[in-house]
Amino acid sequence: MSPHTYDCFVRFSDVDVYGHVNNVKYVEFYQEARIAFITSLAGNLLAVGSNERQVVARIDVDYKRPMLFRPQPYLIETWVTRIGTSSYELGARIRTGAEDDATTCSTAHVRLVAYDLAGGRSRPLTVDERDRLATGLLPDGP
Amino acid sequence: MSPHTYDCFVRFSDVDVYGHVNNVKYVEFYQEARIAFITSLAGNLLAVGSNERQVVARIDVDYKRPMLFRPQPYLIETWVTRIGTSSYELGARIRTGAEDDATTCSTAHVRLVAYDLAGGRSRPLTVDERDRLATGLLPDGP
Amino acid sequence: MSPHTYDCFVRFSDVDVYGHVNNVKYVEFYQEARIAFITSLAGNLLAVGSNERQVVARIDVDYKRPMLFRPQPYLIETWVTRIGTSSYELGARIRTGAEDDATTCSTAHVRLVAYDLAGGRSRPLTVDERDRLATGLLPDGP
Amino acid sequence: MSPHTYDCFVRFSDVDVYGHVNNVKYVEFYQEARIAFITSLAGNLLAVGSNERQVVARIDVDYKRPMLFRPQPYLIETWVTRIGTSSYELGARIRTGAEDDATTCSTAHVRLVAYDLAGGRSRPLTVDERDRLATGLLPDGP
Repeated sequence: MSPHTYDCFVRFSDVDVYGHVNNVKYVEFYQEARIAFITSLAGNLLAVGSNERQVVARIDVDYKRPMLFRPQPYLIETWVTRIGTSSYELGARIRTGAEDDATTCSTAHVRLVAYDLAGGRSRPLTVDERDRLATGLLPDGP
Repeated sequence: MSPHTYDCFVRFSDVDVYGHVNNVKYVEFYQEARIAFITSLAGNLLAVGSNERQVVARIDVDYKRPMLFRPQPYLIETWVTRIGTSSYELGARIRTGAEDDATTCSTAHVRLVAYDLAGGRSRPLTVDERDRLATGLLPDGP
Repeated sequence: MSPHTYDCFVRFSDVDVYGHVNNVKYVEFYQEARIAFITSLAGNLLAVGSNERQVVARIDVDYKRPMLFRPQPYLIETWVTRIGTSSYELGARIRTGAEDDATTCSTAHVRLVAYDLAGGRSRPLTVDERDRLATGLLPDGP
Repeated sequence: MSPHTYDCFVRFSDVDVYGHVNNVKYVEFYQEARIAFITSLAGNLLAVGSNERQVVARIDVDYKRPMLFRPQPYLIETWVTRIGTSSYELGARIRTGAEDDATTCSTAHVRLVAYDLAGGRSRPLTVDERDRLATGLLPDGP
């Protein structure tokens, strides 16, 4: 199975005074890729009106190579690494392109928690959520 | 010794469609606090023209409570947790205020690497950098 | 009468590769000041749940001097220049400080339209909205 | 002659609490399209190291329709409307797509001034700059 892929277009406004994409923007990029991934699994996971939400509990980002402002997109791969009772974890990486010898600019790991808005606390993942997440499971990464 | 403190003013534009400050913005806030902290230790650590740079190698952020759009600032505390040969690490947390019973919204940990721009590789921290960082050292946190 | 004042704290992330606050960020700053102004007139004008919304129809911004990343805030003044049937207009400017001889970095003009969300079209300003806006009216500016 | 076209990909982080792309982001989008346009005319117009810079003097934006978060890009058209002695002006619009019956979400007008960094003042456009801008001239718009 292959990880989900997302074309990440860098904006001029992502670049800081040092001429590189700012560290913070990597986290924004991972968020955009994650939303595309989760939407591809099940559009309603992010539904605004839904009472069953998933919230970010932890983000770890490693920075390996600078990202630059350029017309062609970077490639972000995202996959599920673990499905727990009330949480799950995603792995992700940003690469310069889709080629086998593309450079990895960054890797990341995110933990999300299923949340019951009305109750104001975490909740078990539903069977449907677990089934959908399982289709993106790559415990050992791409 | 006390950690460095930074007043973090939330903007309307930091809030996402769910009505909370977006996860990514926490990382931006930590960056703003970190820059204020490093500048307070030594203004030239971030000098654009300098050949001796420090780059972010890793960021870990834990999310505990939502941050909201409000006029009064949040408080960000930042401190040094470790000084290595060519890298150092910072701890940080975002709190609802300065009171003893203020709520912690998030905690973070950042690793920075001393970098030689001309040589294109990491370099040892200078004695001056180590001395300055040592004045902010709080290995066990606040 | 004096215009509404807003302390605008510049972030490192507002600065672009040229070392100045990016043009786009001025517009964000004006938005933050405008929200503070409108909230000061009547908290509910921006209420998310309300059916009576006000939407931005036009923004004009003049750029006069660069804004820089600095710890002390800039000052943004905002005032009402015109109250129409279903729209109103605001003037605003960004200054380096509150002193009489402070430098003006930018001026702006915004037109907002009262909007009926349910009907999906503009609507007349209510008497209450007009009354509140009138308290901030400075047709000739500060 | 046709205007320059730019594919504008909306990010989740462009959306505000009202569920629409925030007004400020339109200005960011116009900036991205403008940079792509100017780069297409002459890569060096935006060169960081160059002493001959062009700075934004004025931006006018009209808002007509909300932009939404969606996978497919919006289309931004940009063209030159006037070439003066030391300044020039651009027209631009954001459309839902390239089709003839696509909806216009916004129109904009920007004035840029040629600037001599070393001298700290405006300067005449060079013959080369004028020639390059002339290739994008569409005084009456698309």
